[in-house]
Amino acid sequence: MAFTLLPKDTSFFDLFDQLAGKVLDAARALEEMLERWDRLEARVREMKDLEHECDAITHRTFDKLNLTFITPLEREDIHELASRLDDIVDHIDSTASRLVIYGVKKPTDEAKLLAQVLTRTCIEVQKAVAGLRNLKDPALLSRISVEINRLENESDDILRLALKRLFERQNGDVLEVIKLKEIYEKLESAVDRCEDVANVIQAVVLRHT
Amino acid sequence: MAFTLLPKDTSFFDLFDQLAGKVLDAARALEEMLERWDRLEARVREMKDLEHECDAITHRTFDKLNLTFITPLEREDIHELASRLDDIVDHIDSTASRLVIYGVKKPTDEAKLLAQVLTRTCIEVQKAVAGLRNLKDPALLSRISVEINRLENESDDILRLALKRLFERQNGDVLEVIKLKEIYEKLESAVDRCEDVANVIQAVVLRHT
Amino acid sequence: MAFTLLPKDTSFFDLFDQLAGKVLDAARALEEMLERWDRLEARVREMKDLEHECDAITHRTFDKLNLTFITPLEREDIHELASRLDDIVDHIDSTASRLVIYGVKKPTDEAKLLAQVLTRTCIEVQKAVAGLRNLKDPALLSRISVEINRLENESDDILRLALKRLFERQNGDVLEVIKLKEIYEKLESAVDRCEDVANVIQAVVLRHT
Repeated sequence: MAFTLLPKDTSFFDLFDQLAGKVLDAARALEEMLERWDRLEARVREMKDLEHECDAITHRTFDKLNLTFITPLEREDIHELASRLDDIVDHIDSTASRLVIYGVKKPTDEAKLLAQVLTRTCIEVQKAVAGLRNLKDPALLSRISVEINRLENESDDILRLALKRLFERQNGDVLEVIKLKEIYEKLESAVDRCEDVANVIQAVVLRHT
Repeated sequence: MAFTLLPKDTSFFDLFDQLAGKVLDAARALEEMLERWDRLEARVREMKDLEHECDAITHRTFDKLNLTFITPLEREDIHELASRLDDIVDHIDSTASRLVIYGVKKPTDEAKLLAQVLTRTCIEVQKAVAGLRNLKDPALLSRISVEINRLENESDDILRLALKRLFERQNGDVLEVIKLKEIYEKLESAVDRCEDVANVIQAVVLRHT
Repeated sequence: MAFTLLPKDTSFFDLFDQLAGKVLDAARALEEMLERWDRLEARVREMKDLEHECDAITHRTFDKLNLTFITPLEREDIHELASRLDDIVDHIDSTASRLVIYGVKKPTDEAKLLAQVLTRTCIEVQKAVAGLRNLKDPALLSRISVEINRLENESDDILRLALKRLFERQNGDVLEVIKLKEIYEKLESAVDRCEDVANVIQAVVLRHT
């Protein structure tokens, strides 16, 4: 299927921008939750609302796919990209919920640091998604991809340090080790999911250049 | 490659139906194992047999791909779909085996509930696979996909509740926490693998409509 | 895009061979680390160097993709294959680093056994990657794929035995259980990543035969 960019199709890009915006909202909400550590139950509910809004946008994207004859990108790429963006929010929502379910006493500096890197990565994801409107600049998307890869390496380094400290400083509270280990891993895994989005976008670019 | 449905090719759909049937058999066997909690070693062996049968069907599918010139779906989609169906059974088999390896004392209500949702999801997977024979009704496949997504959300809610209770009710038996946590997560992950199958099928539909 | 094998394009295959070679180097380095259990910090640094070299080759592959007009395989397949090979090294590097971060006292026989299977699987991956140069022999690639699948089953069996022994023989040292469980699972997961590479290669073969 050849690449055709018709004005009437741009609304797929609008839906992607909305999704990427919600992804970034979720990352910032998680960072704030860890920073302020108040209104926990309310924050989890707000995050769940964000997650449902993403589901709704994703389903609207799928429905639109079924009703649109000519799409600006391959149909399966649109499906894949929406699904992968939705995955990021699922991971962020799951992290927020685990923090409360597990009754984590106080978020560690390492958890806050990981959440900060996640927010920075979601900003790059938003840029990459916006860049899809104009595939004429593959070099820009390639640079964003390299930056997302760099941030993923950074989050992996923080995870390693966090796990090292977690095991060194535990005071026999093994349950707290299990809980924080999962929180750290989920945060790092959310950054990995951002890299998945970057990979889908790179594949789209490669098919159209 | 255009969509061509020749009579001689329908046996790929037969192989898919067989696979989806074994997937459902495995889900039901796991649900029954958790419900009755008897003949554990025998049940694990029976599950392993089911898993081997799935491997055999999957390999038969791959061999057939290498010998068939015109296929009813893209060759790589056939490969992907068989692989993803096989993944579900791997997860179910792995859960059954962990239950025995870990010497889990008694399955919890939450584990049983997750296994029930898994069975219901595998019934939808079977419907979706059957629906592939007739891609003329994308709306049906779309509805099944939405239902699988709903069941995945349901299993995620049960997982959260299960983890909450697990950590609240533990009596210092941290090993039991580690074991049950993995069982719960594997059950939920099996439902996620069903969603992967739904995604592959959606992508096939999108390419053919 | 039709399959064209032009002499000037063979360097993509050279890059793949380099990557597969580094993957095997990493697997062997991990096996040696577990066997000798000396110079741990130095070995982790050497592994990190290997990982960076793989990143560099992967990025060189992506840059070359952006500069090459006619590629010997679909552009997105080249991207996918390089990414999946890189994933294997990430898993191996992560395992080596966890061994030291966690201060694992002494590697178990099961960890060594898993590392041996991983090395054998990486040898098959190298063969499969080399086989890509000549897609005229799909039967060879199919046989390698079956062998990788067999090795993945073997590593899964070892993992089950390892977990069984880990929980049976623990002497109340739950933290050691958590650490070794993750090491075992990461080793097995590295073999799974090899299977992902085999799947990508199978998909490429299917598109070209």
